[in-house]
Amino acid sequence: MKIVTISREFGSGGRELGKRLAEELNCDYYDKEIIAEIAERCKVNEEYAEYLLSHNFPSSDNITLRNSFHIPATLQMTHIQVLCEQSNVIKEIAKTGRDCVIVGRNADLLLEDYCPYNIFVCADTETKLKRCREYAKDGEVMSDKEILKKMKRIDKNRMKTRAIISDLPWGDKQTYNLIVNITGWKIKDLVPLVAGFVNKWFEEE
Amino acid sequence: MKIVTISREFGSGGRELGKRLAEELNCDYYDKEIIAEIAERCKVNEEYAEYLLSHNFPSSDNITLRNSFHIPATLQMTHIQVLCEQSNVIKEIAKTGRDCVIVGRNADLLLEDYCPYNIFVCADTETKLKRCREYAKDGEVMSDKEILKKMKRIDKNRMKTRAIISDLPWGDKQTYNLIVNITGWKIKDLVPLVAGFVNKWFEEE
Repeated sequence: MKIVTISREFGSGGRELGKRLAEELNCDYYDKEIIAEIAERCKVNEEYAEYLLSHNFPSSDNITLRNSFHIPATLQMTHIQVLCEQSNVIKEIAKTGRDCVIVGRNADLLLEDYCPYNIFVCADTETKLKRCREYAKDGEVMSDKEILKKMKRIDKNRMKTRAIISDLPWGDKQTYNLIVNITGWKIKDLVPLVAGFVNKWFEEE
Repeated sequence: MKIVTISREFGSGGRELGKRLAEELNCDYYDKEIIAEIAERCKVNEEYAEYLLSHNFPSSDNITLRNSFHIPATLQMTHIQVLCEQSNVIKEIAKTGRDCVIVGRNADLLLEDYCPYNIFVCADTETKLKRCREYAKDGEVMSDKEILKKMKRIDKNRMKTRAIISDLPWGDKQTYNLIVNITGWKIKDLVPLVAGFVNKWFEEE
């Protein structure tokens, strides 16, 4: 079974690389799908699940439940609980035994026992800024300063989440099999090259 | 012109990867050749040139010159001087306009203007230990503890040398185009995969 995990700096294009890589390898792809499943299980909406997962310290925010008839309308849902559900969902994906690419969510650590091929994607600031400008959601207008602030905040959160579950810092090269700096590349050109590493890695087993 | 630079952790196999990559790309390869040239120019023996280049702080060691007839028998040769000569030699290699792979010596920074493809090679400690045991010089017997100490010392020196010429730390992923963790790989299997990145990179230009 081939499991490829992709960790990435915000704005680097790791998600696009992951999606295209899954197509190239003809296997399943997981990213937002995981959020949807967690939201379903925790009976919160996806945005809130994502909010909790991208912030680090347990808060005591109230969560409005989808089904307010059977369960009380609000509930203290800690980050830890959401993180646990995330861990369950990711492990269940692996248990299906199907080849897949999983983007983010520290899947490399959670699935350590499955020996995934772990890729980290980075890029220089200018490349990431350009990407964020191009891929801004409809109607979202942000200045470069605001994008940089968001970039910093999200990566800092990833760093902090990582620190909870690993001794090695987020992005540390000892943790990954391959670190690809996307600066100067068209992502579509990188896909077959990265797939080459993945295919050879699993062929050896 | 294709210039590939390879930086590496001590014992990771970066030199072997570089040598094989140069064969695969059918281009020149530079590593010890640079030391020989520096030694020639500075009129010191290669071992001493290498010693100076792998230690960081200028010392006032006396150097026995090869030609003691024309020049005084001893000379204060600072590390800075040797580093300068190293820089000259590397820049002259680039000026020839020939494709090449250069291992170590911060060639990635020295040749920044030539836009080389910069690769960093790392591996986990066990892999590096195994490699050092296998490739020990004839008659050299070192305990694992001694190898680890040497490994740490050499990498620390590389880190310090880097800090003199760069704001970004040695091994920092922003500095390289590709970081390959060699753990679990046979180097010969990696060569065509890495060459794929290099060829595509320069094809785009």
